[in-house]
Amino acid sequence: MINYSNINGHLVPAGEASLKVSDLSVIRGFAIFDFFLFRQGHPLFLDDYLDRFYRSAELLHMAVPFSKAGFARQILQLIEHNGQEEGGIRLLLTGGYSPDGYTPAEPNVLILQSPLPAKTWQSSQGIKLMTHTFLREIPEVKTTNYVTGISLLPELQRRGFDDLLFVENGEWIRESARSNFFLVLDGQRVVTPGTKVLLGVTRKQILHLAGKRYQVEERDVHISEVAEAREAFFTSTIKGVLPVVQVGDQVVGDGKSGPVAAQLYRDFIAHVEAYLEEQSRKAQPLMEV
Amino acid sequence: MINYSNINGHLVPAGEASLKVSDLSVIRGFAIFDFFLFRQGHPLFLDDYLDRFYRSAELLHMAVPFSKAGFARQILQLIEHNGQEEGGIRLLLTGGYSPDGYTPAEPNVLILQSPLPAKTWQSSQGIKLMTHTFLREIPEVKTTNYVTGISLLPELQRRGFDDLLFVENGEWIRESARSNFFLVLDGQRVVTPGTKVLLGVTRKQILHLAGKRYQVEERDVHISEVAEAREAFFTSTIKGVLPVVQVGDQVVGDGKSGPVAAQLYRDFIAHVEAYLEEQSRKAQPLMEV
Repeated sequence: MINYSNINGHLVPAGEASLKVSDLSVIRGFAIFDFFLFRQGHPLFLDDYLDRFYRSAELLHMAVPFSKAGFARQILQLIEHNGQEEGGIRLLLTGGYSPDGYTPAEPNVLILQSPLPAKTWQSSQGIKLMTHTFLREIPEVKTTNYVTGISLLPELQRRGFDDLLFVENGEWIRESARSNFFLVLDGQRVVTPGTKVLLGVTRKQILHLAGKRYQVEERDVHISEVAEAREAFFTSTIKGVLPVVQVGDQVVGDGKSGPVAAQLYRDFIAHVEAYLEEQSRKAQPLMEV
Repeated sequence: MINYSNINGHLVPAGEASLKVSDLSVIRGFAIFDFFLFRQGHPLFLDDYLDRFYRSAELLHMAVPFSKAGFARQILQLIEHNGQEEGGIRLLLTGGYSPDGYTPAEPNVLILQSPLPAKTWQSSQGIKLMTHTFLREIPEVKTTNYVTGISLLPELQRRGFDDLLFVENGEWIRESARSNFFLVLDGQRVVTPGTKVLLGVTRKQILHLAGKRYQVEERDVHISEVAEAREAFFTSTIKGVLPVVQVGDQVVGDGKSGPVAAQLYRDFIAHVEAYLEEQSRKAQPLMEV
């Protein structure tokens, strides 16, 4: 049971967390967010997520009204108050209650806790992607805009695909609505689009881990390279590493999840465990609120 | 003073109109809307706006939980209750309170009244547009996504421009964030982009009125045509017809508002007056709520 949310620095009952309809997130889709998991009470890779959140804000000329340290303190206090060992935290920064319905006003800042998301996929089987010609609007910024991804859900289901792959001009692979995309070429080169994508925090960890075992390339990836790939996989905060076995009509490799994705998944789990051990060692007693 | 809003078919005090933060408009920018004016208590061109609202919903696979007639009745009741002669009405249809934070749920429907917007421009002087290479994400749908337009407000101000002009691939003029764009060529041809734009209701009226006096062309418009144009103008619900005197570095015609825009503005005012007269004749006594 999650009892509390934090709105503009104040704890409020989670069921009452609301925004007036004049908020620019509601009427103009003008908001940025981020989302991360916590385990054993510790946010995973919090510094990376806060860096990205502040960077998204900066790129849209929005100001986060807290320092990173102050924001981190509020996040830890919320987790402490809700008393759960693990779960997800969503940060939101909105354009605020705009008097003219367009010009940003004092932003609203939300910290919302949710249960740990249930896995809805079988990682051993891998997933099938429907390609869609699309480039996210401001790819480097984690805006709240998921209109294209959500509006394609009925088509995904009808055609038997599990998720999307956005391909710029039908040629250059970019990302999915909520995941980064990787190919494995020759069984030893790990390749992912380097620009015009959201720079995922899990993507960053996987690139770091992959660099210890394989050749890593961040560069433009052409859709025709899928046919040559041995493996493909997604990375995301919720999914970690998830094998992709089909892209459009093209079966990837032998159509089964492969050894590189499996290895990187094991490496990632070990990396998370090491991170948690380090956090536990460093942890100060949390301030009582 | 506006006292009431309508949320999901119920009148609520306007100051309390809010959405829980799990609504997909807040966390995923998944919502469509529309906006129109009313004068003498009569919504202007309501059928056109409702048609577009329902069409936007359909294109995103959302269902409006009311018939058009029922929706129109609620709009008129809200106007009646608020007791103002003129103003603006915003309709919103959101993705609802999604249990998983992504999949659309039962939609929330909002009818929000606002005062008649103040004019912030001098139509006699005309406005200057900053070009921006951009194509709206799903141009035919009036989503709430205005991230690009809003994020460019500081740059507009810094560079001394009044508004934006979105140009696909830097070549093909499409529209502005909140207005359609027209050129006048040879003083007698009225030209506007025919596809990949939001089909504005005022755009439709102006095309109809222009067809009585000039040659009208709906087709792709290249950015190089601005240099040949005698005049340019915006159309929008709030602005009506607004002369444009500069696009990027290019001065349009002699840099002053011109006779075609002025004529069409007069025609539009007369058209609105005729519409209101017709509505007054047809008006039935409003149902008491």
